[in-house]
Amino acid sequence: MTLPPSPVIDALQSASKKMADRHTPFIFDDWYVAAFSDEVSSQLLARTLLGRGIVMYRSAAGKVVALEDRCPHRSMPLSVGALQDDHIVCAYHGMRFNTQGDCVHVPSQSTCPKSMGVRTYVTFERGPLIWIWMGPPESADWSRLPEQAWLTTEQWATSHGYMHLKASYVRLHENLLDLTHLSFLHAKSFGTPDYASAAYKTEIKPGHFVVMRDVVPTTLPPVWAEPTGIKGQGQAARIVRSAFLSPAIHEVSVSFYDCTLPEKERPTFRIRTAHLPTPETATSTHYFVVHGRDFAQADSAMTQFMHEQLFVAFNEDVTGLAQQEAALARTPTNELYEFSVGADGPSVAMRRYLLSRALSTL
Amino acid sequence: MTLPPSPVIDALQSASKKMADRHTPFIFDDWYVAAFSDEVSSQLLARTLLGRGIVMYRSAAGKVVALEDRCPHRSMPLSVGALQDDHIVCAYHGMRFNTQGDCVHVPSQSTCPKSMGVRTYVTFERGPLIWIWMGPPESADWSRLPEQAWLTTEQWATSHGYMHLKASYVRLHENLLDLTHLSFLHAKSFGTPDYASAAYKTEIKPGHFVVMRDVVPTTLPPVWAEPTGIKGQGQAARIVRSAFLSPAIHEVSVSFYDCTLPEKERPTFRIRTAHLPTPETATSTHYFVVHGRDFAQADSAMTQFMHEQLFVAFNEDVTGLAQQEAALARTPTNELYEFSVGADGPSVAMRRYLLSRALSTL
Amino acid sequence: MTLPPSPVIDALQSASKKMADRHTPFIFDDWYVAAFSDEVSSQLLARTLLGRGIVMYRSAAGKVVALEDRCPHRSMPLSVGALQDDHIVCAYHGMRFNTQGDCVHVPSQSTCPKSMGVRTYVTFERGPLIWIWMGPPESADWSRLPEQAWLTTEQWATSHGYMHLKASYVRLHENLLDLTHLSFLHAKSFGTPDYASAAYKTEIKPGHFVVMRDVVPTTLPPVWAEPTGIKGQGQAARIVRSAFLSPAIHEVSVSFYDCTLPEKERPTFRIRTAHLPTPETATSTHYFVVHGRDFAQADSAMTQFMHEQLFVAFNEDVTGLAQQEAALARTPTNELYEFSVGADGPSVAMRRYLLSRALSTL
Repeated sequence: MTLPPSPVIDALQSASKKMADRHTPFIFDDWYVAAFSDEVSSQLLARTLLGRGIVMYRSAAGKVVALEDRCPHRSMPLSVGALQDDHIVCAYHGMRFNTQGDCVHVPSQSTCPKSMGVRTYVTFERGPLIWIWMGPPESADWSRLPEQAWLTTEQWATSHGYMHLKASYVRLHENLLDLTHLSFLHAKSFGTPDYASAAYKTEIKPGHFVVMRDVVPTTLPPVWAEPTGIKGQGQAARIVRSAFLSPAIHEVSVSFYDCTLPEKERPTFRIRTAHLPTPETATSTHYFVVHGRDFAQADSAMTQFMHEQLFVAFNEDVTGLAQQEAALARTPTNELYEFSVGADGPSVAMRRYLLSRALSTL
Repeated sequence: MTLPPSPVIDALQSASKKMADRHTPFIFDDWYVAAFSDEVSSQLLARTLLGRGIVMYRSAAGKVVALEDRCPHRSMPLSVGALQDDHIVCAYHGMRFNTQGDCVHVPSQSTCPKSMGVRTYVTFERGPLIWIWMGPPESADWSRLPEQAWLTTEQWATSHGYMHLKASYVRLHENLLDLTHLSFLHAKSFGTPDYASAAYKTEIKPGHFVVMRDVVPTTLPPVWAEPTGIKGQGQAARIVRSAFLSPAIHEVSVSFYDCTLPEKERPTFRIRTAHLPTPETATSTHYFVVHGRDFAQADSAMTQFMHEQLFVAFNEDVTGLAQQEAALARTPTNELYEFSVGADGPSVAMRRYLLSRALSTL
Repeated sequence: MTLPPSPVIDALQSASKKMADRHTPFIFDDWYVAAFSDEVSSQLLARTLLGRGIVMYRSAAGKVVALEDRCPHRSMPLSVGALQDDHIVCAYHGMRFNTQGDCVHVPSQSTCPKSMGVRTYVTFERGPLIWIWMGPPESADWSRLPEQAWLTTEQWATSHGYMHLKASYVRLHENLLDLTHLSFLHAKSFGTPDYASAAYKTEIKPGHFVVMRDVVPTTLPPVWAEPTGIKGQGQAARIVRSAFLSPAIHEVSVSFYDCTLPEKERPTFRIRTAHLPTPETATSTHYFVVHGRDFAQADSAMTQFMHEQLFVAFNEDVTGLAQQEAALARTPTNELYEFSVGADGPSVAMRRYLLSRALSTL
């Protein structure tokens, strides 16, 4: 055999058209991570989010301001201007804008043109993250803001990092909903050979896509073996729940325990990772990550060890997804087809959901 | 407030459509600076002007030749060929072209194909500049050639320089017709805070757009204070006339004097700058500048000092206009709007004029 | 004169539309060089051929395998995967593919989806070259495989090299069918001034385009003078046959002899060059070259000398054709015209043939 028969390719292409991909418009009516809290200060910060140029800063009172990064006079980026008394002063002709995006001063005349201003964005800061509502401010839906209590409680020790991903955010979500790739893409970091073939359960309903996998018994890779002390061959249980929560967040929760000990005597070690993709362009993504654990919280050396090891693995995704995106870009549309297998159930449902969300808000 | 209401944005977008921008076709029926005189020699010089590849050289008799930079045989750039006896010999198959663009020899046969040749351009050299008529030779309109007597008289000491601007030439003209930006974009070079709010007068008629500004009293920045010796706080008058003369030239004329002296006793110091933008592509521009003064003409150290200081300021425009162009490129068309203020009167009129010129010669 | 009159330009543009250029679709139903034999091993090799991403490797039994370089599951390039037991294991989710492109294992489930696989390509290895049939395997036409006996016989000593050409393969064929360019583009390497004006004969029939040129007497450039020992001024005969054999191969055969010696006493030295262009994209080409001679076969220093000298000349083509391509890209379509001269007869016929082949297989 070689290429699949035409009717098969036609059917695969029809199925793909019902799933979001890099050609799908962005979903503006939702919350995304705009920045880590520690990135926003009295220095103007420029970032492209969902294709829009945004300038961010922190007011004297500590509030995060996010405005369209383009002077409404002659289109100079506001981010190359100066911040004075919570106002941005445009670098070109000195127009001043307040925290609401209103023009409040035009140096060459005594008044500002009526209704001159730029789009402002609603933001919300919690723990290490600054969230932004990318739709109109009046439509900001607070019920959509992801709950992430563990990011702000002392019960969890966290660290965070950023990667620039040269791929669509859709493909990152897809990646996270099929962790069978751990055995291959992450064979040298946090994957193990038994991962891909372990039994899994799924939960699939609108906006809620989960894969659960109990890998028992298994052997832990160093990133988990060192912190938990469960170092023996086939000594460990690795209980994973990987959940799409919104276009902007996917949470992976894992419990580890020593499966050679009686249930009542064994401690459980829990880790969580918030994967936080914010689209930059159709084929590039700001990839924010917060990682945490609920044990040995005060051990900063352990925090550093886990952070370094995990980012080796996450960078394997960044490399791989960029290679995937390049292959997609290179393939003529009529020759592009993709087969789905059983393990793709949650990601296929998720991509259909993203497409329907995107089309409903156009 | 945030974003302006839709009807306001609609009105702004309608107004913008009547002004030239980087989507506007080039105006071919006019003269542009092709090069500085000292750039053109018996070495072939390639340069893209108004999107056209041009090759230039100086004949043995000293005349400047400008031809389409593409062999009409197999499209090799003529500029990579050789110059022999005032003829270009193509690097590929040796076709020879005379100064009129006619093919006069084909090495592989005894005759040239009838009417084989390339477009030639009319040029005119005067002082430091080589002008080129970008339309058909037969339509060359000598009455449009800008008069610039001060560039060739000994009464004025001049220097000149070149910058490559990653922005539309339209935006450079706009920049030059609203000098309120001196107080901001040039705050650290030749701007002063009082400049933006100084009263101004304008002259607006077809092809003639002028802004005049008397900043009195003011304090001169070093680039002017040093040469004139008018160094005191609030001691100076700065009388500026900024004039669009053609798509290819904008002239800024400034007089300085000590406003603490009686009118009859004070000397007047005059400087002039010819800003000479020649479009390269829709979003890049050859930015030629000639600067002159009518005092201390023999003082070459002063010439060098002023030249260096001025090019610091001009490069601030080059940086800023590229940032503006990038913001324009990034903004989705339906989200792009620009407010104009009173000080934009001349530049708005100028941009309307450029658009009408461009459309009339299509 | 300047630009040709409009009717002439119209006629030239009409003529050009009947010839292949970089806008012409690729000709898939033919054999192309995919790689040199020594490039393909048990390391996966990725290469874009005719716009298609291809992965190649050599099986344990030594057979060359060529597959579409895109996993049919989620589009990861197969070339970043691993080779295990002649199977490619995808780097992402571990799907395995056999040498026929069939998916034979999906780690997360017990069976593979029906007919899951990727396009496979027929290859043929002979001497230093690996040929690939870029059309469907079932249409592979073995009669089209170019015969090149001299590449595999000990009578000929050969060397080979690769260049990446930033130009259409059409323009490389054109280059090779009009060797009058030797006197100009290669004036400093293997051209001589008398070459361009030497008489020539042609053979033109479908798929067969030949130019023959006897340059007698002539002076040999060092690349030929050194190996043959024919070093005198006007002492040499240079008998050239330059033949387009297929879209993938052009063969240049040259005989040299000392024309001052009687016919019976003089030895003849023969060299051959297989120019092997394989389109990468519309405007870039894999340029493979094999060069050989039928004398002093065991002299490896001579092989090295000739190889180095020849690649200086071939790189002059690579540089020149990229300049030509850039000029073509820069010229507005309505201003593009090309004159043909007598020496273009074979190349014009060849380009018409390529266009008709391309259109007939759409």
